[in-house]
Amino acid sequence: MSDLTRTDSTAFFTDQYELTMVQAALESGAAHRKSLFEVFGRSLPAGRRYGVVAGTGRILEMIRDFRFDDAELSFLSRENIVDSRTIDWLANYRFTGNIRGYAEGEIYFPGSPLLTIESTFAEGVILETLILSAMNYDCAVASAASRMAQAAGDRPCAEMGGRRTNEHAAVAAARAAVIGGFASTSNLAAGLQYGLRTIGTSAHSFTLLHDSEREAFAAQLKSLGTDTTLLLDTYDVEEALTTAIELAGPKLGGVRIDSGDLIEQASEVRESLDRLGARDTTITVTSDLDEYAIAALAASPVDSYGVGTRVVTGSGAPAAGLVYKLVARADEAGEWTSVAKHSSGKPSRGGHKEALRLIDGPIAVEEAVGIPTLPDDVGEGRRLSVDLVVDGEVDESFVGAAGVKKACARHDESLAELPRSARRLQDGEPAIPTVFYSN
Amino acid sequence: MSDLTRTDSTAFFTDQYELTMVQAALESGAAHRKSLFEVFGRSLPAGRRYGVVAGTGRILEMIRDFRFDDAELSFLSRENIVDSRTIDWLANYRFTGNIRGYAEGEIYFPGSPLLTIESTFAEGVILETLILSAMNYDCAVASAASRMAQAAGDRPCAEMGGRRTNEHAAVAAARAAVIGGFASTSNLAAGLQYGLRTIGTSAHSFTLLHDSEREAFAAQLKSLGTDTTLLLDTYDVEEALTTAIELAGPKLGGVRIDSGDLIEQASEVRESLDRLGARDTTITVTSDLDEYAIAALAASPVDSYGVGTRVVTGSGAPAAGLVYKLVARADEAGEWTSVAKHSSGKPSRGGHKEALRLIDGPIAVEEAVGIPTLPDDVGEGRRLSVDLVVDGEVDESFVGAAGVKKACARHDESLAELPRSARRLQDGEPAIPTVFYSN
Repeated sequence: MSDLTRTDSTAFFTDQYELTMVQAALESGAAHRKSLFEVFGRSLPAGRRYGVVAGTGRILEMIRDFRFDDAELSFLSRENIVDSRTIDWLANYRFTGNIRGYAEGEIYFPGSPLLTIESTFAEGVILETLILSAMNYDCAVASAASRMAQAAGDRPCAEMGGRRTNEHAAVAAARAAVIGGFASTSNLAAGLQYGLRTIGTSAHSFTLLHDSEREAFAAQLKSLGTDTTLLLDTYDVEEALTTAIELAGPKLGGVRIDSGDLIEQASEVRESLDRLGARDTTITVTSDLDEYAIAALAASPVDSYGVGTRVVTGSGAPAAGLVYKLVARADEAGEWTSVAKHSSGKPSRGGHKEALRLIDGPIAVEEAVGIPTLPDDVGEGRRLSVDLVVDGEVDESFVGAAGVKKACARHDESLAELPRSARRLQDGEPAIPTVFYSN
Repeated sequence: MSDLTRTDSTAFFTDQYELTMVQAALESGAAHRKSLFEVFGRSLPAGRRYGVVAGTGRILEMIRDFRFDDAELSFLSRENIVDSRTIDWLANYRFTGNIRGYAEGEIYFPGSPLLTIESTFAEGVILETLILSAMNYDCAVASAASRMAQAAGDRPCAEMGGRRTNEHAAVAAARAAVIGGFASTSNLAAGLQYGLRTIGTSAHSFTLLHDSEREAFAAQLKSLGTDTTLLLDTYDVEEALTTAIELAGPKLGGVRIDSGDLIEQASEVRESLDRLGARDTTITVTSDLDEYAIAALAASPVDSYGVGTRVVTGSGAPAAGLVYKLVARADEAGEWTSVAKHSSGKPSRGGHKEALRLIDGPIAVEEAVGIPTLPDDVGEGRRLSVDLVVDGEVDESFVGAAGVKKACARHDESLAELPRSARRLQDGEPAIPTVFYSN
């Protein structure tokens, strides 16, 4: 493999048509028209009450690093994908426009204008794939995680699904799960990059490696301390528990159960632990959990949940269904015109937009979207869009570990505003309606 | 953000418990026991007839690059995740063992021993997350893609789903889709890294950017040539088609329809194109396709399919459900012992394994798995496992663009062997049974 196939730029997370459109628009002269792209979802996944914005901080990092280097430019030239004028234009590409949007962690509804990208057409169109990839996946995970965390109540959820999604997606998933309300992750890269709390002690293979479960537990306790969590279900749970407390004493940190009937086992394990005096030893369960399984365990003596496959695959909705559409552009005279596709199906609403979450007392009652602005008498509310990139400069407070903390706080506050119905797991309508005001 | 949070090593695509297990096993001395880990799936996604192995070439690349650098080691130390002995061991980590497995592109069934990793426990256990992440996602996509490509018959499918999955996952998805039988992708990074054919011309935004559809089409034709594909459904399909042929003449390369009733529209568009003399102008459809929608279009005059969300999310099965289990390990005397978890649920079969696809005439009839070997009289067949890594050396023929070509060929050949029932889209049993022979 030549070096020209390796790259650490983010510029090639891009669909080819974005670059061929740049070429054709450079030809027609329209490439430089001021344009407004909007990210929104036409609907929530079936039955969901709300969505959670995630991915924003990652997008800002990737836009900062978005440049076409030699590897990419040579490929485009060698494969005749675009002409030399376009390659020259790409070589100098830096995003110099403005991005506003819902802060990361914010709740959203159908039609919420989640992100707007204002720049020339050419500068904005080539960010489509990158922005949608990050938001469609991260919002899917954060939205699922939020439901699970709500179902878990005060009990912490740990994200442990990295083995069930692409290895890079795993890092984004851990981050999105924490924004959605998870307490920690098993993923080390996510710990390193985003300052997330990481967890994990041992798997069945560790027990099987040793000549007996007793030897395995003894080794783990000696090395990781009495505070560690021992995995009980390699052979016989009840026997494992007795061995665990014999070796660790009643101060054992925790036990984990990863198979079988969790409701039944949690009760039995709690009873045995209590009988042996290990009243503070916690019980973690980790087998094929989702929001419904977590809700079903609410009355069981479980202390924390480890969630894998279902959170990293969006609990049935692995992509959030967000789209990136041109909603307005300037004409030759520089005047803005609203635009929207209007053939059959897939409707979109053109134009600049302003979004307000209307609040009645302490409770959100409506997602009000003004096109282009809201009427003065629309009601009291909270403005939903913030500046994320101004004249090409990324607001660093949304990026990295600090950005995740901020997003977690935003999510908590936005969730607290929602009506009770938002927390229902049963299929239903969005928790509040989205109302469009055109003027 | 300090540089210590950025890394291009693949070593942190790892769950924390793998490293804590290394620590505890270094303590007990068992870290150096010879171990055999196996990747397999307990079942296929509900109703599927077969699965497709993908991700292998990517895994080999990532194992080659798997090392713990300063950023990772400092993090582990700073966060007290493992002790200093373990950090020293990780600092010197290189995989020196053997990996054998089903070649990429191969078909698999429940219980097929897809990959075996033979090394010390410590060397093998820390590859669990990386290997499962890549295989669970890539196999999910390749398996879905294969069904779609089969449903499409001679008509090419293009992967266009990068906007519906994590940005890195998008690259892996494009690669996996091509291994599953797709002809091309919209994803530029996948074109660059794996030599895939890339496609794409324009989106609705390009039409909306211009003052009229006519101006947009004229600009695209002038810049990209008469051979380009024009997108018809921004406003009115019939009108767009007339404009397109007026401007391009009957030699227009192709048209694309992205919304509405595709069956109805394909016929109408074909009729109009033929009437206008554009008999060779192709029709591509791209709206929410999956294997069922493609099958439903079999009788329609469509020339190619563009598939997005459904292929990159595994058409309902976004993770392949593969697991990584310790199946055998040496004792202190160096003797191999088969091991398996045997508490309730989630059964696995311990031991070394040998796999053969039994062939009767030209048709596969059984997935024969011997534990540890197959009886001599089991029948004629094709050996399924090949060497991928020998004494830590990666077989480069499975990596990069060459690896993808090889995987495509393997997939075609393996698919050709399967009984007809394998191609059915309806839910059913695996196309051939997996039979285990213990001796």
